Amino acid sequence: MRATLMYGAGDVRVETIPDPVIKEPTDAIVRVVRACVCGSDLHPYHSLAHSADGVPMGHELVGVVEDTGAAVTSVKKGDFVIATFAFQDNTCVFCREGFQTACLHGGWYGTPENGGLQAELARIPLADGSLIPVPGVTEDSELVPSLLTLSDVYLTGWHGAHMGRVEPGKTVTVIGDGAVGLSAVLASRQLGAERIILMGRHAGRTALGAEWGATDVVAERGDDGIAKVMDLTRGEGSHVVIEAVGLMPAYEQAHGVVRPGGVISRVGVPQYEDAPVGFGSLFGKNATLTGGPAPVRAYIEQALPDVLEGRINPGRVFDETVTLNEVAAGYASMDARKALKVLVTP
Amino acid sequence: MRATLMYGAGDVRVETIPDPVIKEPTDAIVRVVRACVCGSDLHPYHSLAHSADGVPMGHELVGVVEDTGAAVTSVKKGDFVIATFAFQDNTCVFCREGFQTACLHGGWYGTPENGGLQAELARIPLADGSLIPVPGVTEDSELVPSLLTLSDVYLTGWHGAHMGRVEPGKTVTVIGDGAVGLSAVLASRQLGAERIILMGRHAGRTALGAEWGATDVVAERGDDGIAKVMDLTRGEGSHVVIEAVGLMPAYEQAHGVVRPGGVISRVGVPQYEDAPVGFGSLFGKNATLTGGPAPVRAYIEQALPDVLEGRINPGRVFDETVTLNEVAAGYASMDARKALKVLVTP
Repeated sequence: MRATLMYGAGDVRVETIPDPVIKEPTDAIVRVVRACVCGSDLHPYHSLAHSADGVPMGHELVGVVEDTGAAVTSVKKGDFVIATFAFQDNTCVFCREGFQTACLHGGWYGTPENGGLQAELARIPLADGSLIPVPGVTEDSELVPSLLTLSDVYLTGWHGAHMGRVEPGKTVTVIGDGAVGLSAVLASRQLGAERIILMGRHAGRTALGAEWGATDVVAERGDDGIAKVMDLTRGEGSHVVIEAVGLMPAYEQAHGVVRPGGVISRVGVPQYEDAPVGFGSLFGKNATLTGGPAPVRAYIEQALPDVLEGRINPGRVFDETVTLNEVAAGYASMDARKALKVLVTP
Repeated sequence: MRATLMYGAGDVRVETIPDPVIKEPTDAIVRVVRACVCGSDLHPYHSLAHSADGVPMGHELVGVVEDTGAAVTSVKKGDFVIATFAFQDNTCVFCREGFQTACLHGGWYGTPENGGLQAELARIPLADGSLIPVPGVTEDSELVPSLLTLSDVYLTGWHGAHMGRVEPGKTVTVIGDGAVGLSAVLASRQLGAERIILMGRHAGRTALGAEWGATDVVAERGDDGIAKVMDLTRGEGSHVVIEAVGLMPAYEQAHGVVRPGGVISRVGVPQYEDAPVGFGSLFGKNATLTGGPAPVRAYIEQALPDVLEGRINPGRVFDETVTLNEVAAGYASMDARKALKVLVTP
């Protein structure tokens, strides 16, 4: 089969590799109907050291089950399924507590052992916990892009809003107008936020954010951006800040605009380890810092009817489509911010 | 009057300074019945640069109202009162949201303008928000030490448990066997924690912690301490970690033992600004970091009946009493960990 491998920063190739096979009785093999490129894929695209063997890429898909191991009971050949961006058994103690990305038996795609999902076929470990069947949907459905966002991006935005404890009456500031940031706007609206301030400077994207519920758009960054948000909130700051970038300037904006007692919820994968958390940044105003890799498995069943019944259309984040053979161009397009999010067809 | 001033690290003096006077119509003057030394006073005791004028010390008191400004309505001359360790109007937007230490019009003791409470008399700004009258209590009551803990230490421990979302079924690890740590143990028990692991190595203190609800005591520190807590929690880690020290090794223990999806709640004033918060410490396991200066005003009315009716006796943290003239010896005793917490009589 063909699959996407990254050999170093900026070096994305599609190559023919052996088809995946069932290794464990809990595995399934899925034929990929749609995959996509994630904002987090751009981090290695910028910084990956040269890899002689190549790193398998991609962690989002919708597809059709081709084969299942003997222990798999919840999906069968021919089922249309969504795969969560990390795999989990959905039964361990951490899964039961709603943090499936910390599953004791789970893990991540993009390793030599587990492969990547920007490919023709994928081996899905722990299929009963990691594949969500969507009865009645066919691969030519116009719902497919929105269903694909339940693999990661929309529910990562949802996770940011959920961990930030967005609720009616709250002011939410979303930092970042990428696909996760826009998804966090939509999720915050679904959770009843009173006011949603979107920090971003890409007009096409912030326009979608406004359609999805952003009440204010702040294009300024740094101290100017902080001043603008403080001004919009009568000097009080934001109850919830969803940080959907992962870089230090975004973190600094977050603690600059969070209100005393407020919450900074991070869903951009931090490209730093140390950050200010002392009296002058978080502690002095009792600000809470939360977030992490979204346990989309915890949220997907609740979100599915909203997509199937058309109440939300998070698939609008996809504004460019490439074939698998063209996936390198998709990375380049997202990296240049020409595309918001790139859909990949087989 | 006599008051405590610190002139530099280790240099605590009691001097005669002018009596405080009503400056604003919202002020009250309180005669101090009991003050005390706080663990946070030890930070300047270790590191304060030489001060020519001296820094006024102390932020906890119970006392009797001597005089009130014209605008004060909730307390009157002769009332027995508790002062919160920071002052607030208790009416501004942040006060109403339960974060009175961020009051728009509030502030801190220990400045030249506001003075300190390790003194014979104190000026209390915004007295209607900052003094809590306790009807029926006289200054010779045996409840006085426990009432004094509602000024800061017990309710700071409570804040740690509250922000950590301690509730029935949760495992709580408290880092630090100082007076705040022990108070956090007691508060966690009050909030129904299933298991309370106290990390501390001072046997007298951990014995009080055990009386107050600690189910396990871990004397080890660093990696050994982390391993012990992980072992006690079947490798899963603690739902809530209350960090009651404020130093980096305590922070490192906290993120080492917090469970995926768990909460680190800090009530020790951090003596650092930057700390690990990235994928390897907090983000990867969706750990939440919270806490800050306790808004004791938010909790005091709820805690008062527990003290008055004898359900809790948090005043047991006081294990040494000095007169105001001897307060320097009290600092030295706490610094040497001979005393857990020092009560100061006039």
